[in-house]
Amino acid sequence: MADDKKLTTRAEDFSAWYNELVLRSELADYSPVKGSMVIRPNGYGIWERMQRALDDMFKATGHQNAYFPLLIPESFMKKEAQHVEGFAPECAVVTHGGGKLLEEPLFIRPTSETIIYHMFAKWTQSYRDLPILMNQWANVVRWEMRTRLFLRTLEFLWQEGHTAHATHDEAEEEAVRMLGVYRTFMEGWMAMPVITGIKSDGEKFAGALRTYACEAMMQDNKALQAGTSHDLGQNFAKAFELQFQDEKGEMAFAWNTSWGVSTRMVGGLVMTHGDDNGLRTPPKLAPIEIVIVPIWKNDDEKARLTEAALKVKAELTEWTGRGATDRLRVHVDLRDGMRSGAKYYEWELRGVPLRFELGPKDLEKQAVFAARRDTRAKQSLPMDGLPAAAAALLETIQNDMFAAALARREANSVRGKISYDEFRALMDGKGGFVFAGWCGSAACEAKVKEETKATIRVMPDAEFRSAEAPATCLCCGGPSMAEAVWARAY
Amino acid sequence: MADDKKLTTRAEDFSAWYNELVLRSELADYSPVKGSMVIRPNGYGIWERMQRALDDMFKATGHQNAYFPLLIPESFMKKEAQHVEGFAPECAVVTHGGGKLLEEPLFIRPTSETIIYHMFAKWTQSYRDLPILMNQWANVVRWEMRTRLFLRTLEFLWQEGHTAHATHDEAEEEAVRMLGVYRTFMEGWMAMPVITGIKSDGEKFAGALRTYACEAMMQDNKALQAGTSHDLGQNFAKAFELQFQDEKGEMAFAWNTSWGVSTRMVGGLVMTHGDDNGLRTPPKLAPIEIVIVPIWKNDDEKARLTEAALKVKAELTEWTGRGATDRLRVHVDLRDGMRSGAKYYEWELRGVPLRFELGPKDLEKQAVFAARRDTRAKQSLPMDGLPAAAAALLETIQNDMFAAALARREANSVRGKISYDEFRALMDGKGGFVFAGWCGSAACEAKVKEETKATIRVMPDAEFRSAEAPATCLCCGGPSMAEAVWARAY
Repeated sequence: MADDKKLTTRAEDFSAWYNELVLRSELADYSPVKGSMVIRPNGYGIWERMQRALDDMFKATGHQNAYFPLLIPESFMKKEAQHVEGFAPECAVVTHGGGKLLEEPLFIRPTSETIIYHMFAKWTQSYRDLPILMNQWANVVRWEMRTRLFLRTLEFLWQEGHTAHATHDEAEEEAVRMLGVYRTFMEGWMAMPVITGIKSDGEKFAGALRTYACEAMMQDNKALQAGTSHDLGQNFAKAFELQFQDEKGEMAFAWNTSWGVSTRMVGGLVMTHGDDNGLRTPPKLAPIEIVIVPIWKNDDEKARLTEAALKVKAELTEWTGRGATDRLRVHVDLRDGMRSGAKYYEWELRGVPLRFELGPKDLEKQAVFAARRDTRAKQSLPMDGLPAAAAALLETIQNDMFAAALARREANSVRGKISYDEFRALMDGKGGFVFAGWCGSAACEAKVKEETKATIRVMPDAEFRSAEAPATCLCCGGPSMAEAVWARAY
Repeated sequence: MADDKKLTTRAEDFSAWYNELVLRSELADYSPVKGSMVIRPNGYGIWERMQRALDDMFKATGHQNAYFPLLIPESFMKKEAQHVEGFAPECAVVTHGGGKLLEEPLFIRPTSETIIYHMFAKWTQSYRDLPILMNQWANVVRWEMRTRLFLRTLEFLWQEGHTAHATHDEAEEEAVRMLGVYRTFMEGWMAMPVITGIKSDGEKFAGALRTYACEAMMQDNKALQAGTSHDLGQNFAKAFELQFQDEKGEMAFAWNTSWGVSTRMVGGLVMTHGDDNGLRTPPKLAPIEIVIVPIWKNDDEKARLTEAALKVKAELTEWTGRGATDRLRVHVDLRDGMRSGAKYYEWELRGVPLRFELGPKDLEKQAVFAARRDTRAKQSLPMDGLPAAAAALLETIQNDMFAAALARREANSVRGKISYDEFRALMDGKGGFVFAGWCGSAACEAKVKEETKATIRVMPDAEFRSAEAPATCLCCGGPSMAEAVWARAY
């Protein structure tokens, strides 16, 4: 990699900046199948850390992993009317297998409600079999026309949680709980603040009763839907005869939820934290938290500094102050024939949160020269007590990145009275989130989308709502039924 | 689950036994897509532990994970002549996407050499870019006609490692190294002894120069190919123009390897260790290593025994004597309204390696009554020092399971002079591995397969070869070129 050409800046062209950053930091690459991408080790390493953190949280909330088939019979897709209407047009269809035309075409899963609830029905007899709390890590395919690396690709990786419950209350509680898990992950690990809330009927999942979502603001002030959790009601249970005998011995339909996040989050991370020098990775998700760059001018120095750098690495990785299972993740860059400046440039592009430079003078005073990736602030850190100091600095970086993203979101959110003309001008200009009233009509929602490309992202949860509830609809000026977050979105 | 019906025994019908065990222990289930299976949490939990152990070993040998597209253009499959001949007939083909007929059909990957080496070519300019050491965890589809749960399914989960090297020696070393990693895993974690060696040309991977394999003997004395590692030579490099500038500035083709293991291993584990009572899981791969069953007759006892069982669990799981990251995996069965006997039956079926029964008398003498799943041996274990004793017992179980499987394999292996008629009778009878000579001709290999359904599993590595090399070919009686392991296989 490492050509020293500067990235296009965010101010010049946000979209070009994003693509260049993803390609040049080797997070992903285009593939020969239009719309499909290759996730390279730098990007996959972030995804692996996302997976591990989420998987632990899913298990801690009682879920177990399983795996369901990739291929879904066409007839299954058609059993839930809204679902097939929403998904069939964007499916990839297998018509031939083993050299023969298939009797029934098979759809590559765009999501797995149909096949999973069919299986749940097979496994459920009585209330004692409920709840079923499952998750799968899988690939899905949706035939997208306009694709963007990570954000919208023909194939993507995700997890889809699927549950079945005896009562609607329990299902609703589960859907809200998992939305909370997503928020905890996005804010605590990705350092990406989100607004949680409920989708309008026009934006909900095809087949859901209610869809909850986490919405984040990117640096171009557009919204990214980063995760959704659906209360599916009994729609799929009825379509797939997912019934159980209740405590009174009567047959009842189960209540389902499904919830998912995907590799799209890697794109969200880039657009939340990247700067004109490249990626900034929140320490908790960084495959490498600290890169040590020894600096030498001759062979003698090379030998001494290499040895010292490896010793520092050993001390850092052996330290268990953050818990035995959460060691510091450290890399020493020993590449020869490459200027230190070029190394710094590359590690900044890749977004490693902390860089320790180690030259002869640093070694003499038993210190490293530490550079934060987020603020680019630099300071000398004594080797004595370095692991604890490094861990503390990483925690500060994690927190500061969240605070910076939160401040940016708040600075670009508009609350209070705004006229429709002002709103249109804002959407055509710098964008942002507008907290304003909605009369509840699909007509107003459609008109706003048509005229401004903005949509209702969510009707936000209580803690995000304005102190004074908006009185009128942003669009028609009629009485507001609910406060909504309006924004353009990815 | 838990109907108390006995399994068909292995002696009665090995195949029926296997299917019943897999279904009733809820490792997997049939799906509505013929030949595709659902991996249920009990089975997926074993697969997750397999993945974690292997992934750690791959990373320790320098590999990084990445992810490549599911869909491969038809034209890519056709670039390597042997490869397309081997795989195209068993591919699933996507002809429609987004409601339209595609200009070029897309194959669901049966394996990913073609797309991966295309990308490697894009990323490789000079010898400095080599070696590339990558792995992906993915699903693949092969249109199989006769499917068996885990062993042969239309879709399966696997990992495929792919590497590119500057020299053939390096590639060959890599292929052999990864075969060794597989063997270490299969013997050390699965407690499943394997014979390693090289495949005949007739049995090698479509497009490979050489295929190495691990072959295990199942309890019906048939062989299971449990993992393969391929030296691909320059076949794919030439087809996909994977070239690099060497140290002299000259262009050269790279040398590739690929290697894979799959969910088939779960089937291998069942057929190696299962008995007429159900699964026996090697402790290292068991999602639950110890199940504690408190036994009560009344509410007072229930309260006391529940408390005691949870206390034992806490002591076991808090113990770090096996390393902080390798805690004992313990479950307490507190289900009410279920006889203890039914619980034992269910946990035996599921294969949990160690059961601790805890009744009022055990509690009185501050002990648990421990039952090994592998030997069904029972003993009282004092609560004082229980974690270390339990860990030691689990290690004994792991080692004993390997020793038992090894002894069974050796008892069912034939070495030394065997006539072709004796061989045919053996294959039609109890089966087993026959170490015998091969003249090297494809004609003899084909004749043996035709007449006995046995194939050359491998030409074994030195340590597995007979003290005295066979002089003549098992089939034609001509001079032997190499010792081979002949057996019927899955």
